[in-house]
Amino acid sequence: MGAQILVMYKPPKDAAAFDDYYDRIHTPLAKKIPGLKAFSVGRTPVTPTGDPSPCYLIAELNYDSMVDLQAGMGSPEGKATAEDLANFAHEGVDILIFDTVNP
Amino acid sequence: MGAQILVMYKPPKDAAAFDDYYDRIHTPLAKKIPGLKAFSVGRTPVTPTGDPSPCYLIAELNYDSMVDLQAGMGSPEGKATAEDLANFAHEGVDILIFDTVNP
Repeated sequence: MGAQILVMYKPPKDAAAFDDYYDRIHTPLAKKIPGLKAFSVGRTPVTPTGDPSPCYLIAELNYDSMVDLQAGMGSPEGKATAEDLANFAHEGVDILIFDTVNP
Repeated sequence: MGAQILVMYKPPKDAAAFDDYYDRIHTPLAKKIPGLKAFSVGRTPVTPTGDPSPCYLIAELNYDSMVDLQAGMGSPEGKATAEDLANFAHEGVDILIFDTVNP
């Protein structure tokens, strides 16, 4: 039970520059967001069919609740993390927000 | 650290029928997959921009490692779960598989 932000980055033109910025600048910003319970990253996902993946990097930000998530993203640290996307996610990013359950 | 299967279901034409099948038939199949460490589900995600979400339901299957993930999906239970998608995911599903890290 909880809430999650799922962030899917489209493949960058310069993967090395993207990776460097993501690890060195963006990750430390994200980890400062208040209430963030878990932060996980998946790189270069594959598809079961062998088709190219539509995204290059997947980040999952987990919170205890949607209230915590919204408070976190509304904080100065959350806003700084969101605003930082424009500095490196040049090919675009898909973001989904949802409550999670463990059925 | 671990590995994840991220399953994103496109919006169904009949949401009630989809939900019923997902909860009653598909979820119990998925939960039987050997090595499955955590299974979480998010319904009707929203986007930060208010654009419609491209998916209706998001399932995350977490394993301790890619070896465990592949063994699980290659098992009879894993194959039965994958084959069951054809019974209800009529609008299609995007599946991504990746190692996860906690940076």
